[in-house]
Amino acid sequence: MINDKLKRILSSDTPQLIGKKILLAGWIKTRRDHGKLIFFDLRDRTGLVQLVVNPKVSGGSYKIAQDLRPEYVIGVIGEVKRRPEGTVNKDLHTGEVEVEISEINILSRAKPLPFDIGGEELSLELPTLLDHRSLGLRHPKISAIFKVQETIANTFRKTLREEGFTEIFVPTLVPFATEGGAEVFPVDYYTHKAYLAQSPQMYKQIMTSIFERVFTIAHAYRAEPSVTTRHLSEYVSLDAEFGFIDSWEDLMDMAEKIIKEIIDEVEDKNDKDLKIFNVKKLPEIKHKIPRLKMREAQEIIFKRTNTDHKGEPDLDPQDEKEILRWAEEETGAPFVFITHYPTKKRPFYTMPDPKDPDFTLSFDLLGINEEWVTGGQRINNYDQLLSNIKKWGNSPSNFEIYLQAFRYGMPAEGGFAMGLERITKDILGLLNVREASLFPRDMERIDERFSKTDSKTD
Amino acid sequence: MINDKLKRILSSDTPQLIGKKILLAGWIKTRRDHGKLIFFDLRDRTGLVQLVVNPKVSGGSYKIAQDLRPEYVIGVIGEVKRRPEGTVNKDLHTGEVEVEISEINILSRAKPLPFDIGGEELSLELPTLLDHRSLGLRHPKISAIFKVQETIANTFRKTLREEGFTEIFVPTLVPFATEGGAEVFPVDYYTHKAYLAQSPQMYKQIMTSIFERVFTIAHAYRAEPSVTTRHLSEYVSLDAEFGFIDSWEDLMDMAEKIIKEIIDEVEDKNDKDLKIFNVKKLPEIKHKIPRLKMREAQEIIFKRTNTDHKGEPDLDPQDEKEILRWAEEETGAPFVFITHYPTKKRPFYTMPDPKDPDFTLSFDLLGINEEWVTGGQRINNYDQLLSNIKKWGNSPSNFEIYLQAFRYGMPAEGGFAMGLERITKDILGLLNVREASLFPRDMERIDERFSKTDSKTD
Repeated sequence: MINDKLKRILSSDTPQLIGKKILLAGWIKTRRDHGKLIFFDLRDRTGLVQLVVNPKVSGGSYKIAQDLRPEYVIGVIGEVKRRPEGTVNKDLHTGEVEVEISEINILSRAKPLPFDIGGEELSLELPTLLDHRSLGLRHPKISAIFKVQETIANTFRKTLREEGFTEIFVPTLVPFATEGGAEVFPVDYYTHKAYLAQSPQMYKQIMTSIFERVFTIAHAYRAEPSVTTRHLSEYVSLDAEFGFIDSWEDLMDMAEKIIKEIIDEVEDKNDKDLKIFNVKKLPEIKHKIPRLKMREAQEIIFKRTNTDHKGEPDLDPQDEKEILRWAEEETGAPFVFITHYPTKKRPFYTMPDPKDPDFTLSFDLLGINEEWVTGGQRINNYDQLLSNIKKWGNSPSNFEIYLQAFRYGMPAEGGFAMGLERITKDILGLLNVREASLFPRDMERIDERFSKTDSKTD
Repeated sequence: MINDKLKRILSSDTPQLIGKKILLAGWIKTRRDHGKLIFFDLRDRTGLVQLVVNPKVSGGSYKIAQDLRPEYVIGVIGEVKRRPEGTVNKDLHTGEVEVEISEINILSRAKPLPFDIGGEELSLELPTLLDHRSLGLRHPKISAIFKVQETIANTFRKTLREEGFTEIFVPTLVPFATEGGAEVFPVDYYTHKAYLAQSPQMYKQIMTSIFERVFTIAHAYRAEPSVTTRHLSEYVSLDAEFGFIDSWEDLMDMAEKIIKEIIDEVEDKNDKDLKIFNVKKLPEIKHKIPRLKMREAQEIIFKRTNTDHKGEPDLDPQDEKEILRWAEEETGAPFVFITHYPTKKRPFYTMPDPKDPDFTLSFDLLGINEEWVTGGQRINNYDQLLSNIKKWGNSPSNFEIYLQAFRYGMPAEGGFAMGLERITKDILGLLNVREASLFPRDMERIDERFSKTDSKTD
């Protein structure tokens, strides 16, 4: 980088290198001038380390350091030293050391920043933050969100792989609106119309007839005509599906296992990130997550709040929060399965409960604040599925590739899907799901706000 | 499944269970009647096992077995037995055993098949195969492709994770055609126009300023107005990008490392799948992959074939095959880096060679048959990038979020992308990239052919 003989050292390794001359590289987070000394916090992918520039040690470095401002990218050579008594920072992994600089090389200059990103908080409104997304992401309180997100996605994959699932890659361009409804984005596909998939549902079901157990991390698209704090127009869906189930309860067992693993892994791998968000402890799922029929949940809510939603076909956000409070009181953890949603309110492929066909063998897993997982057993009998497609007002010819999988033998099967951004949001206690999407898409924005007139760039 | 006391056993475990009574479940692959005995090959997610139904052992099972046809899903109970002398099948993992059935339960019936899928080959034309994709995928010579594909994707992730890369999730809905050109699909995005990303390029570059080293497995969309054997309208792109490179050769080193790992892992994990394709040995990369400038490659091709393409701005498919033959003769493996493509032919963000700015610090890695990886160093200086955006005829205001990353300090960086389906295709020696896509999208088809009039479903 700036020296052929030294290999770059990462900041997190400096505490083990006291007395050594090393090469570091990264971004200047903050600059502090103390009398004749200049201090920098240098940020690299492993965290921060303090640099000190002393004119008595290197006049040349001191001269260059005069011009350095936040977000300049620099390479430096220096000696790792124990910090003087009383200046140790116990909150920082490298807080016992500093690097005394003998050489500085400017790798990339930064224009003056539109706002300071060196503080502990970035107290800006979300629209402003998103207007400056690429800069704001550099703040540890924003980048940490996506380290947690990575752990969630990876744990989903790891857990399912251990359970014999095969990872599949399925298309997002689909020939029609599979789940019905108007909330679908049309695409000009050569001389035809195509649509963006609302979920990988049909394809993961088909693939259970090939690999029995499959998962996919897919992009899903919803043309929600409203702006809420919990919806994105494009989101990442963690989808699993498996056959040869003994009972539809197997599906909830698997979902529960994954959620527990996710919480354990985030706790284990992201302790530094959780600390940034003042999350001291994630809810521990010690007991089996309760499984309530929707009607039972409505009864409990009625008893607790005197709000009578017993005739409603779904729980509204307030109901969800109330039943989560109940679950936390009962089990110590805010997680609860709500099952048996009405047949009319679920997609055509949902398996009706044989004991009460107006309700389905479907479930939502509510977690912390809202729905985390949705799933259920699917109809695997070809004739029943065909009849339901017609009953729901669809044309079977649109479903030929899907129906093939059932026409030629399909075991009892089901699955579930979870929204990556939502789980990230709730684990960190974020207020808006947009914060948990690197580059969130909604009605008002794709990177830049639609309402904005031509922005100036120079 | 059919018995509360027995847990389902997978076919691959049967050789260890001789003498035991077990429960199996799966699809009937083939049926053979030998005198009074009926034999079935049962397929589950781990492979095949032979079932034998003997009326003297179980009259009830024999009666049910009369009606069983290929692709019926059944659960069976039986005893694992060593096969009689002379009937052992050495090509099959379970070839030394068979299961003598005492109980059969039909879990799902299959309609008569439109073609036989029980043989070693599925000798059908690709369009016919794709018309019956969900059925055809059940054939081991098709499903094996996607087990290999899973290994490729997973090895990409695993290798990069070990190298300190962070996995990111970036959007596919973009505000304009980032890489230029007409080959982009427009989307009706609320009251606006959006486009499907041709690559995750801009976002992975931005993210190097956050995590230094990032990768993503992204869907990419190309509205190629032609049908070739090597293009898909939607494909899976394995993308990596990293900063603080000492030299652009670091990029090729990383790409080479990943490709070697992929070949090793496929060889190790997919030996069964490779065998199905008669791939005895994958090419072993023993030496460093040669790195040739495009002009040097053209010179070599000219000397070998007397075809003069020395003035051309790119290698055509025949050139690629010829230089791969050269590489195989030189190193024993058909892999070669071609570098220094002309500046005019590469996107605006490509770093020109400081020694010869008409050519770029870009590369393609050709593998086996065609381009596997494309990459290069990017311009990381803000002013140079801004000037290039204008020079390429684009409006900087469209690139605001992208430019932010460079305006505020970006180290020397670069990266590469590889097409998952293409690598899968070449490793298995497939003729058409569509074979390596579960549900391929092209000009003529989204699941069903556009030309097809209303298909009949009953």
